[in-house]
Amino acid sequence: MRGEDLLQDYKRRIDLALENLFDNHLARLYKMSPFVREVLDVTRDFTLRGGKRIRPILFITGYLAVGGKKRADILKASLSIEMLHTYFLIHDDIIDRDDLRRGKPSVHKIYESHIGKRKEDPKHIGQSMGILAGDLLSHIGTDIIMRSRFPKEKRILAAQKFNTIAINTVFGELIDVRSSISPTFSEETVNDIHLLKTAMYTIEGPLHLGAILAGAGKKTLDSFSAFALPLGQAFQIKDDVLGLFGTRKAIGKPVTSDISEGKETLLITKALEHATWRERTFLKETFGKKDLSMAELNRVRRIVKSTGAYDYSIDKAEIFVKQGIEQIKRMRIDPQQKKFLIWLAEFIVRRDN
Amino acid sequence: MRGEDLLQDYKRRIDLALENLFDNHLARLYKMSPFVREVLDVTRDFTLRGGKRIRPILFITGYLAVGGKKRADILKASLSIEMLHTYFLIHDDIIDRDDLRRGKPSVHKIYESHIGKRKEDPKHIGQSMGILAGDLLSHIGTDIIMRSRFPKEKRILAAQKFNTIAINTVFGELIDVRSSISPTFSEETVNDIHLLKTAMYTIEGPLHLGAILAGAGKKTLDSFSAFALPLGQAFQIKDDVLGLFGTRKAIGKPVTSDISEGKETLLITKALEHATWRERTFLKETFGKKDLSMAELNRVRRIVKSTGAYDYSIDKAEIFVKQGIEQIKRMRIDPQQKKFLIWLAEFIVRRDN
Repeated sequence: MRGEDLLQDYKRRIDLALENLFDNHLARLYKMSPFVREVLDVTRDFTLRGGKRIRPILFITGYLAVGGKKRADILKASLSIEMLHTYFLIHDDIIDRDDLRRGKPSVHKIYESHIGKRKEDPKHIGQSMGILAGDLLSHIGTDIIMRSRFPKEKRILAAQKFNTIAINTVFGELIDVRSSISPTFSEETVNDIHLLKTAMYTIEGPLHLGAILAGAGKKTLDSFSAFALPLGQAFQIKDDVLGLFGTRKAIGKPVTSDISEGKETLLITKALEHATWRERTFLKETFGKKDLSMAELNRVRRIVKSTGAYDYSIDKAEIFVKQGIEQIKRMRIDPQQKKFLIWLAEFIVRRDN
Repeated sequence: MRGEDLLQDYKRRIDLALENLFDNHLARLYKMSPFVREVLDVTRDFTLRGGKRIRPILFITGYLAVGGKKRADILKASLSIEMLHTYFLIHDDIIDRDDLRRGKPSVHKIYESHIGKRKEDPKHIGQSMGILAGDLLSHIGTDIIMRSRFPKEKRILAAQKFNTIAINTVFGELIDVRSSISPTFSEETVNDIHLLKTAMYTIEGPLHLGAILAGAGKKTLDSFSAFALPLGQAFQIKDDVLGLFGTRKAIGKPVTSDISEGKETLLITKALEHATWRERTFLKETFGKKDLSMAELNRVRRIVKSTGAYDYSIDKAEIFVKQGIEQIKRMRIDPQQKKFLIWLAEFIVRRDN
């Protein structure tokens, strides 16, 4: 199967499994209270409205790559990481005040408009319910991996890894939010955030989880890391490029979001390094500015290009991808999965959403 | 040792173990980033400023009661449930807009005053950091139980139970918050909340966790439930009585909090059932009212007493405690631990904070 077709096939099967999770496995909780039914309906809608499913796909691939055979069981177990992801998105949207996610209202906004209008402070009510909805999915994610149909020793190792991923991701998010308040404008902070929030969480973590469930040892996991960490850095750089230069339709949120949220990216850090004094003043003023105009955004874009920060970042992403591909080529894993991982690495820098 | 002395002795040892957890075990994470150091300092301060430590104490007691011998290891493992508790408190304080916890600023307020003043919306920044701080402790709690020094089979059973407790507690909190927005004023909702948020989370869960780590089977766990669930109901009723009739000093938060937050308690539900039409109108008006005056609070208190709701609740709590004690007396467990559990059950309805 071609990479693109395999990706779509995976996505379809993961979406079906997610539907099944909400409609059958979790629906048994409905009887508890209408309010429980409500939160499961809201989070079901939010989870199923789209998403690349890159994490469960890598989870499954990591498992198959080192010889795992239980395809149905690994598909189910891989939903754990998608639940973790959805939990982070829900809390993220509250923190970043994103009203939209994948083109539709975020969870706190759904609650705000459903039940909030009857009360004094709909915003606070929406946020409160969003906090709890996220908390719930976090525990459901852990539950899925702990109850997955794999031998106990493998399951406990995977559950520990799962939790380490969660801790590191919270650290990454925390550094991200804190640095947007007290900007460091250093490449080190950007690297920390990329490593924790993307490289480990999006690429390395899922691959490791699958590989652990197939019985992989430390050496194999380390080899996967040498592939995953540069690839994750590339993934995040590409994300930041799309965030600054993409269209609202492609990225599913306002094009001004990244700058308004004061997101420390390699693009901005490098632009600041090479900008003129006036450009630097301008960049620092717009950084974190809530009511950024399109004219201001376009000036940011021009500065990022003229300082060479754009080219620098694109080059860096490509070097990272090459580094990852060379590494995976050396690994002794299932050839089909190897082929898919190489395709995926290239896809990550080519994608436009 | 007398019950009271044993309680104090436990509390001292748990506090020391918590200090050790933050100062040694978690401090290794400091090197990551100053922002990580900051969140660990804030949550350390919050965790160590007090608390009854009832959950880790029951955790340890459940373990010793069924013959567990590894005292040092169970003490460390028991911190998992205190971390879970701290996580819930941090998110709760955001949701309930409680600025104080145990007489000092809550986590989102600490962040609000430390870093928020430099920015446009200190409240939002404080809440964002509070969300992340809570998320972090949730994962640290899970990590502690998964890495505890017990055999794998027991550890995975305990970790699953831990996660089930977390899910149920979120459901309880969710029903609590949602019903304060759309009040049901039904004893059923109150019972659901008590069962999920207190009986399972505060009493049954910790006892089960300890017992599981000592190798207890289903029959023993069921017997503990028959003790724990009524006791938990009693604990919550007592909490609600203290919340409405206690002093600010004893309960560490404004005495108007429970009414202002629209907390559905047995006291209010029963008062509504037996109130006159005018009293009922008044109760429903004050329910969830943010700027409740002391005069209004005192009228609520008078109605709760005159309708018999106060006596009904106190009686119910005592019946529950008796029921629990009869159950524990029948169990074949370590006699010292049995004695302590009976003392604890009586203490729960006698306590004044």
